[in-house]
Amino acid sequence: MNAPDKQPHELRKDPIVGRWVIIAPNRLSRPQTVQDCPDHDPGSFDPFLEGNEDTTTDEILAYRDHGSAPNGPGWRVRVIPNKFPAVRVEWEQVKRGDGMYDKMSAVGAHEVIIECPHRETNMSRLSVENIREVLWVYRDRLVDLKRDPRLVHALIFKNKGALAGASLDHSHSQLMVSPIVPIAIKEELEGADHYFRYRGRSIFDDMIQQELAAESRVVLETEQFLVFCPFASRFPFETWIVPKHQSSHYENITRNMIEELGTVMKRTLQMLEVALDDPPYNFVLHTAPFDSQPLPHFRWHIELFPRINRVAGFEWGSGFYINPVPPEDAADFLRKTDIE
Amino acid sequence: MNAPDKQPHELRKDPIVGRWVIIAPNRLSRPQTVQDCPDHDPGSFDPFLEGNEDTTTDEILAYRDHGSAPNGPGWRVRVIPNKFPAVRVEWEQVKRGDGMYDKMSAVGAHEVIIECPHRETNMSRLSVENIREVLWVYRDRLVDLKRDPRLVHALIFKNKGALAGASLDHSHSQLMVSPIVPIAIKEELEGADHYFRYRGRSIFDDMIQQELAAESRVVLETEQFLVFCPFASRFPFETWIVPKHQSSHYENITRNMIEELGTVMKRTLQMLEVALDDPPYNFVLHTAPFDSQPLPHFRWHIELFPRINRVAGFEWGSGFYINPVPPEDAADFLRKTDIE
Repeated sequence: MNAPDKQPHELRKDPIVGRWVIIAPNRLSRPQTVQDCPDHDPGSFDPFLEGNEDTTTDEILAYRDHGSAPNGPGWRVRVIPNKFPAVRVEWEQVKRGDGMYDKMSAVGAHEVIIECPHRETNMSRLSVENIREVLWVYRDRLVDLKRDPRLVHALIFKNKGALAGASLDHSHSQLMVSPIVPIAIKEELEGADHYFRYRGRSIFDDMIQQELAAESRVVLETEQFLVFCPFASRFPFETWIVPKHQSSHYENITRNMIEELGTVMKRTLQMLEVALDDPPYNFVLHTAPFDSQPLPHFRWHIELFPRINRVAGFEWGSGFYINPVPPEDAADFLRKTDIE
Repeated sequence: MNAPDKQPHELRKDPIVGRWVIIAPNRLSRPQTVQDCPDHDPGSFDPFLEGNEDTTTDEILAYRDHGSAPNGPGWRVRVIPNKFPAVRVEWEQVKRGDGMYDKMSAVGAHEVIIECPHRETNMSRLSVENIREVLWVYRDRLVDLKRDPRLVHALIFKNKGALAGASLDHSHSQLMVSPIVPIAIKEELEGADHYFRYRGRSIFDDMIQQELAAESRVVLETEQFLVFCPFASRFPFETWIVPKHQSSHYENITRNMIEELGTVMKRTLQMLEVALDDPPYNFVLHTAPFDSQPLPHFRWHIELFPRINRVAGFEWGSGFYINPVPPEDAADFLRKTDIE
C-alpha cells in the first residue's frame, strides 16, 4: 500500500464554464512527451492474476468462494484501491476560494474492479454469470460509498487496450467517486431536466420510442434494455445501452435487471469486438448524483465508444466532432455481425 | 478540385446536451481501427511547397509578390479549400427536424492556411513578419466569410504533428466556418454572460487582474496580451493567449494588435517547443459568433495545448480531466526556458 501523499491533490473549477479538473502532480521531474503505446505483452507479469494478490493493494471487496481468505486466491471478482489514485478518502475535506477561483481537496475513492481471476483481456469473453457479478459489484461499491456524505458522484468506466488508456491488459474497470459532478453529467442532468419541465416527459422515453419506431439505429432490444447508436454520435460506432424503464440511480438496480444487463453487455461487446476486430474501447456509466432523490427526468445509461479514429485537437478544443461513420451504418454493421 | 459530393454531410444536434456533430461519411467500405501514426517522413512529397501549386485545390486567397499569378509560385501565405472538407459552401441550406431530433445540411467553409512557401514544420521558426501575415490572413478570411448570412461561427485551429491530427508536416492551420456555434464556445459565451450580468464585469478582465497579481501562472506579458497557464488547466502545459483589452470578435483586430500578437505567438510557441522538445500540439482560436454585435462579456483568445499525455477514455466520456502538471509548475518551467 502506498502511504497517502502529503499534499492532497486539488479539484479546481474553470471559472468560465464550470468544469472541474483534478490537478494530480506526478513525480516526474521533467514532463515527458506521450509515447505511442505498443500493445500489451501477453507474457508480462500480471498483478491481477489469482495467486498474485500480494502484489496489489489490499482488497476492498471480493466475491469469494466459501472459506477463502481476503487477499488470497479463491475470488471471482475483486476490488482494490487504484495504486496511483487521483482522489483519496484519507484526505481531509477542505474547500476554499482563491480570489475568483474555486478549489477543494480531491477527496474521493479511485478503485479498480478486477473482473476475473484468470488472465482474460476481453470482458466479452467472460461468462455471462461473471459479467453479472461485475455489474453487481459496481452496485455494491456505489451503495457503500454513498454513505460518505462528502462524496457526491460516481463514475464507473473501462479503458480497454493501451490506446484507450489501459495500463494493464487483464480485464478490469475503474470507479472514481468524488465531491463534484463531472461536467458531462451536469450537462445531461440540466438538458434532461429542461426537456422534462418543458414537455412533462422524459427525454430518454422519447428517444427510446423514436429509435424503436425508426429502427435504423437500433443494435439490440431486450425486454428491459435498448442498445443503439445515438443520432448525434460523436465517434464511429458510439453505442449506448439504456434501460427502457425509468431509473436515475444505477445503485438501485435490481437482481432481475442485472440478469438481463449481463446478457446485453456481453452481446454488445461481442458485436463491437467482432465487427471492429478487437478495437481499443472505453465505456462510461452515467448515473445520477448520490445526493439527489430518484429523478424523473434522468436515466442511468452506459456510453460505449471504440477508439477507431484519431480525434484531432480542434475537436477537443471546440467540442465539435466530425464523425466519418453515420450511426445508421454503424448499427446496421453491428446488427449484421455474426457473433455465434 | 473535387466535385461536391452528391449527398451533403449532416450537422446533427444531440437532443440532451445540445452538442452539434458533423456526420461526414468517408468512402471506406469497412471501418478501420486507428493506427499509431509514425512521424511524417521529411523526404515525402510536399503538396504545400512553392512550385507544387498545381497539386492542390485552387487558391481562395494568397498574399503574393507583385506580378505573380494565382496558383503559381510567388506567394508568402496561401489559402486553399480543404481537399476533404467536412462542410461546403456549395451545399444547399436545408434545416429540418426528424421527430425529436434536429439536423441541417453541413453548409460552410473548410479551408487550409499554408503558412509559408518553403518546407517548414514549426510555425515558431517562421519569421515574425511571416507569422503576422498568417494572423492577418485569419482576419481576412473571417471578414470575407462573415458576409454569407448562412454562416454563424468560425473556428481557426492548428494540428501540429501526426499525433495531434496533422496529415502533412508543412506548417499550416485550418479554418472551419459553419451555421452552428460549437458547444465549447456556446458554454464560454453563456458562462461569461452569466458572470457579466451578475457582477457587471468581464470575467476575462477579472482573470487577467488576478493572474497578474498572483504571477505564478503567467508565462509572458506584453502591453496588449497576457499569456498564462489557466487555473483549471485540463492538460499539462495548456496555455492561453488573451488580449488585455475588450474585443469579442477576432476579425476586428487592428494592425497594431497583429504586430504584437505575432511576437507573442512566436515566443510562446518557441517556449513550448524548447521546453517540451518539439511536442505535437493544437491551438484553437475562440471568437464570438458572426451574428452578434460586439459583446462586452466575451473576449476572443487562443487556447494552446501540447499533446504530451494520453487522454483516457473516461476523460472524454465525462469531461472530468486529470492533469498531472499543475499550471503553476508549467508556467514556471516555460518562463525559465531559454529560447535565445
